[in-house]
Amino acid sequence: MWTRSTPFAPPGDKAALETGAAFTPRFDAQGLITAIAVDDATGDILMLAHMNAEALAKTLSSGDVWYYSRSRRSLWRKGETSGHAQRLVGLFVDCDQDALLLRIIQQGPACHTGARACFYRRVEMGPQGPVLKPV
Amino acid sequence: MWTRSTPFAPPGDKAALETGAAFTPRFDAQGLITAIAVDDATGDILMLAHMNAEALAKTLSSGDVWYYSRSRRSLWRKGETSGHAQRLVGLFVDCDQDALLLRIIQQGPACHTGARACFYRRVEMGPQGPVLKPV
Repeated sequence: MWTRSTPFAPPGDKAALETGAAFTPRFDAQGLITAIAVDDATGDILMLAHMNAEALAKTLSSGDVWYYSRSRRSLWRKGETSGHAQRLVGLFVDCDQDALLLRIIQQGPACHTGARACFYRRVEMGPQGPVLKPV
Repeated sequence: MWTRSTPFAPPGDKAALETGAAFTPRFDAQGLITAIAVDDATGDILMLAHMNAEALAKTLSSGDVWYYSRSRRSLWRKGETSGHAQRLVGLFVDCDQDALLLRIIQQGPACHTGARACFYRRVEMGPQGPVLKPV
């Protein structure tokens, strides 16, 4: 039986990655994979973060979303200090298995700034170059 | 006047990054920033890719979406060989300015496999561990 300590199988060739049924996530040189968190109710993109193999395995086995913090260099259950937890509803992987899409139920705001989503500013072109405007 | 050869201003402190009006994208050690491309008509996430400063500047100045290919180590206008180009409708940046969200108009499929979007498989838990199922 699969447990969260079972390692993920190593990536195969291009055909296996793109069309196979095996989930072989491609972690980068730092052991991380990019994850996009999407509000399952609205389809809005809430945040982008990273997972290592342990965070991904804990997410799959528990249904609570775990990430790896690059700045703090530690595993992190989303909401463990803020209370703004995420429950996994669906997990999707991209063609070459180096990016994940998580459909989640978000408790409270997703962004540490208190915004519902991290993408709260739009880039607009001004005469002096690009500037940010609130969404 | 801003042109696509003007460099982006360097990132400021946490407050400037999170609440300022200056667009100061944080490129990583490889000079890249992650970009999520979203279908402006449907809100669907089509793909995840990377931009360097030049790709981002060319995208902002032309409205055609450019990326940087890590495997080919070169700048790349999306659709330049496939014809499956992307036109920028809106650009958004996240709280700490290390991720971009692009709302785009997609010509044809976004994925090089011919799928409309790269996230065409769902990860499901089986008794032997996670497996992939077509969406």
